[in-house]
Amino acid sequence: MTFVLFGATGDLAKRKIFPALYNLFMDGKMPDSFSIVGVGRREWSDQTFQSHVEESVHTFSRRIINDASNMKTFLQAFRYSPLDVTKSDEYQSLLETVQQQEKNLSIPENRLFYLSVSPEFVDAITSNIKQSGLGTVKGWKRLIVEKPFGHDLTSARELNEKLSRTFEEEEMYRIDHYLGKPMVQNLESLVYTNPLLRAIWNKDHIVNVQITASEVVGVEERAGYYDRAGAIRDMVQNHMLQMVMMTAMQISKKGAEEVNDEKRKVMESLRPLQKEDVAANVIRGQYGPGEIKGEPVTAYENEPGVSPSSKNDTFIAARLWIDNDFWAGVPFYIRTGKRMQEKSTRIVVEFKNPLSAETAPNRLTIDISPSEGVSLQLNMKNPLNNQIEPVSIDFSANAKDVPEAYELLLFGALRGDPTFFAHWKEVELSWEWVQPILDAFEEDLVPLHLYRSGSMGPEASYQLLQEDGFKWLDHEQK
Amino acid sequence: MTFVLFGATGDLAKRKIFPALYNLFMDGKMPDSFSIVGVGRREWSDQTFQSHVEESVHTFSRRIINDASNMKTFLQAFRYSPLDVTKSDEYQSLLETVQQQEKNLSIPENRLFYLSVSPEFVDAITSNIKQSGLGTVKGWKRLIVEKPFGHDLTSARELNEKLSRTFEEEEMYRIDHYLGKPMVQNLESLVYTNPLLRAIWNKDHIVNVQITASEVVGVEERAGYYDRAGAIRDMVQNHMLQMVMMTAMQISKKGAEEVNDEKRKVMESLRPLQKEDVAANVIRGQYGPGEIKGEPVTAYENEPGVSPSSKNDTFIAARLWIDNDFWAGVPFYIRTGKRMQEKSTRIVVEFKNPLSAETAPNRLTIDISPSEGVSLQLNMKNPLNNQIEPVSIDFSANAKDVPEAYELLLFGALRGDPTFFAHWKEVELSWEWVQPILDAFEEDLVPLHLYRSGSMGPEASYQLLQEDGFKWLDHEQK
Repeated sequence: MTFVLFGATGDLAKRKIFPALYNLFMDGKMPDSFSIVGVGRREWSDQTFQSHVEESVHTFSRRIINDASNMKTFLQAFRYSPLDVTKSDEYQSLLETVQQQEKNLSIPENRLFYLSVSPEFVDAITSNIKQSGLGTVKGWKRLIVEKPFGHDLTSARELNEKLSRTFEEEEMYRIDHYLGKPMVQNLESLVYTNPLLRAIWNKDHIVNVQITASEVVGVEERAGYYDRAGAIRDMVQNHMLQMVMMTAMQISKKGAEEVNDEKRKVMESLRPLQKEDVAANVIRGQYGPGEIKGEPVTAYENEPGVSPSSKNDTFIAARLWIDNDFWAGVPFYIRTGKRMQEKSTRIVVEFKNPLSAETAPNRLTIDISPSEGVSLQLNMKNPLNNQIEPVSIDFSANAKDVPEAYELLLFGALRGDPTFFAHWKEVELSWEWVQPILDAFEEDLVPLHLYRSGSMGPEASYQLLQEDGFKWLDHEQK
Repeated sequence: MTFVLFGATGDLAKRKIFPALYNLFMDGKMPDSFSIVGVGRREWSDQTFQSHVEESVHTFSRRIINDASNMKTFLQAFRYSPLDVTKSDEYQSLLETVQQQEKNLSIPENRLFYLSVSPEFVDAITSNIKQSGLGTVKGWKRLIVEKPFGHDLTSARELNEKLSRTFEEEEMYRIDHYLGKPMVQNLESLVYTNPLLRAIWNKDHIVNVQITASEVVGVEERAGYYDRAGAIRDMVQNHMLQMVMMTAMQISKKGAEEVNDEKRKVMESLRPLQKEDVAANVIRGQYGPGEIKGEPVTAYENEPGVSPSSKNDTFIAARLWIDNDFWAGVPFYIRTGKRMQEKSTRIVVEFKNPLSAETAPNRLTIDISPSEGVSLQLNMKNPLNNQIEPVSIDFSANAKDVPEAYELLLFGALRGDPTFFAHWKEVELSWEWVQPILDAFEEDLVPLHLYRSGSMGPEASYQLLQEDGFKWLDHEQK
């Protein structure tokens, strides 16, 4: 197969894609013969490009690289084709490079196009793939596209309509890199393969589900994008809702179609928010000044590139209801933000506790990053004082051995397995759910709560759970 | 209170009772003023006895002892009274010692008698306690009695009848030291306080329960007793059946009476064995020669003190059925033996596995000794190869901090809490269940399987489970 990478000189390519391709190659997961053609605006030679790839692998691969001969074989697959992606007439040269390699290496016309480019170029590139003949293949063609997939419901639909002129839905692999995280991928089978969990994975035994993705960093260099996107677009519409789907879906047999079907069903059961209800169910926050690891940090509004009167959300907490037989009455709480106390992505499932006066509730915690593992909090008698006390029984994955998200995702796309990619229906239903929130924010129907940098978000986020008699089960309480 | 210890110069006193009393003292769990009177045949002085106690504490206590002043206070409570326990007239002097100390220390007449003596003396001692007036108290009196409690159903009933002339059932504390092990005590509350376990702790989710107590040692110096007792009396009638009761009981509220009631109900639901059915449900084994840790060891029949043609059981495996609503159809397998591969006491609960072709069953393991903890085997996806593999999530108690069985048991008796002692009904029902096995062994209706020392018992024990489609979940498979 041929892997055509648009944005080959960019940051994502350097940090994630080249190291992932190398690791897949070393694991024997690349096809026997493959061609990788990098596309970018810079006038690089193949040689320059190969050196760049080699350096990025050395810097960012999780592997220790001490095998020069394998590296040489790997790099030989790389070619570079300079291109202004908006100029249709330049694609002919790219097509020639691709075809030349296909001929040299006797590769069938199987072409994977990876768009690691700014969203405004996506439409132009796919049109030109079609027009130039790059997309006319005897074998298969596939498209990998990065987020953001639209800016709201309307723009997402427009984008999808445009891509659909060149690629069928089955040919599109929309990356949500949270779906590449091993513990998120584990959600597919965790409940299905563990009868013990299956027996309790429903509204009869679970009282709430809490999904948190907290970052310590602030907006960093991304204010230009972030100040228009906010946490709601940057995290909630995609990653947070994907984790809700993965947690709530009911898998009863194996297979990729099942996963995409069941995720869609979750979104179809998700109770829609009316614009007027947003304020009662969604907390909008923005970080103020504070301290991170003892160092003072500035407020969001003072960050470079942020408009001084910005009402942009750097924190979102929300309550969701899934109105189906399995989850009716069980609130799902999501929470994500920047400049929070810890960097952590985790799912906590809290179980019913008829003995609430005496004991802590049982809970299952799935740590997604940076640590990866599953822990179960049970109550045990402390033999020192005969008191019942919560203890945690833990499984931690050995992070060293674990493939990174991009390896798992690329391997899926190479095999043509769409399980851990976002199907258009999921994306569309997510935007449908999010749109009233965007509208309510736009019309300023929802208060903006400042929160201290280094905290776990505004007080209002805790009150949201208190209304239902719950509290956020933060890490330190574990 | 006054603690009168018969057998004060013996091995159990030295290794377990004195260190336990010292640890309770240091933990502030002894009454403000207490008197301990040791009774033995040797002509020791108080001084000799106190030195003996001090040395035993130094040798066997789990604590680091570096506080001479506390040790002195502790030892001051000890007096020694030489006595031939069969001679009624000598008890008067013991009574005087007890009363003298009660007067000196202004202790009310609360007397705890601990019989750490050979079973043939138990009857004589309790009669003399009554006759001498030692048992006539203004406060409370209690009796702690060690195993064995009888040699068969008839002798157990006779013994109980004799003890009952001096002590009421509520005053009797029959020690089963397995009930003092912290993880066995945890069984009282483990299911009750964990709704997650309660939801699955029944025949709908559990397919079998396996209780193993394996020893590496052989018969050692105890052939005189053991060759007449066998594993069936030494382990099964008491410890193994107590663990069955603790695992199978259904606690729905707190309190000691509940535990004793529920344990009795388990025994009442235990399907009786007819003598003719024993061979189909009970495996009798005896260790042959073999290797332990690379060293050759001799067969049981060649051990010193064992009669050469002995058919004594050093291994028992059995299948039990509890015919009540919770456990109907769920076999409980028990297994105990000497000269086995590892020293380990554990309970494994195996859960239903509708995906048996694809995945390992879920199971909960309660490690009782030598390690203490709870682990749950779940299935997880291995991100390296996408295969579903069993992983174990574990909680291990910090053994250093954990009180020993005798501390927990003595503390129970000091407080008058009978929860973790064997009630007469439990003992009687256990003997009733075991009696047909004794009869079948006696009449040689059950084959005696030799097993290799260092193995996990005879092949027949594995076949017992295979009949039901199960296998012993040995430690190494964990």
